[in-house]
Amino acid sequence: MTPLPGLGPIHHVGYVVADLDAAVAEMSRAFPLTVGVREVMEAQGVEALLADGGSGGAVELIRPLDPDGAIARFLATRGPGFHHVAFEVPDVDAALADLAARGAEVIDTAGRRGLGGHVVGFVHPRSTLGVLTELVQAGHGAAG
Amino acid sequence: MTPLPGLGPIHHVGYVVADLDAAVAEMSRAFPLTVGVREVMEAQGVEALLADGGSGGAVELIRPLDPDGAIARFLATRGPGFHHVAFEVPDVDAALADLAARGAEVIDTAGRRGLGGHVVGFVHPRSTLGVLTELVQAGHGAAG
Repeated sequence: MTPLPGLGPIHHVGYVVADLDAAVAEMSRAFPLTVGVREVMEAQGVEALLADGGSGGAVELIRPLDPDGAIARFLATRGPGFHHVAFEVPDVDAALADLAARGAEVIDTAGRRGLGGHVVGFVHPRSTLGVLTELVQAGHGAAG
Repeated sequence: MTPLPGLGPIHHVGYVVADLDAAVAEMSRAFPLTVGVREVMEAQGVEALLADGGSGGAVELIRPLDPDGAIARFLATRGPGFHHVAFEVPDVDAALADLAARGAEVIDTAGRRGLGGHVVGFVHPRSTLGVLTELVQAGHGAAG
């Protein structure tokens, strides 16, 4: 077994919104944000961006493109707001394998390409107190 | 005016739960957690703890004590799960004053004592894309 994965630094929090530009403008009235990466993610049926405030904290904003996708359903049923939290880990593949071996419910069994080229994997909210939890490989991918 | 407050590193994410011990045990099946501070906060009608995984990320768990309080209402209406995100800022008082001056809706107009002696202040979800947002003064209070 690999060592138990610790909860690394929080890489970002992810919010679902209806309109990315309006959300950046609204959030920037409170905290000025710089958009680091923005892309359409066809497989997920979303457009997403990662924005930071220049001092370390980052927020991912996600809007649905596919009206039948999970993010569209999330927005329709819960409205805009918090969607997931992402913790850094040294090795996403190893962390997912270890979590699965200890009975956690993983959504991804191996790391995959996420926003901005980050290697990511998701853990089901049923194993993390009801909160959808993303693992992001530390030090990989484009800076957000 | 003070310089615009940036979004500092994410200090923790806060989850509402019904039972602190059960939540730590459940979460620890996925990620081993060390409880750094745990206290009853009478003014908020809650008991809370800050737990970390040893690599930087931290989760605050909050359970209601006052059945008529905001956290009890949150738990009753939404169930357990994500409650707030906390970003570090160099100076909570200055950040709250600056946010208010720029039209953001602040819940606290000055920093107050939070869990573990941290100086904290809250910003209303209406100013932060529907997500309750805490500011935590960097480098103050007991380590979580």
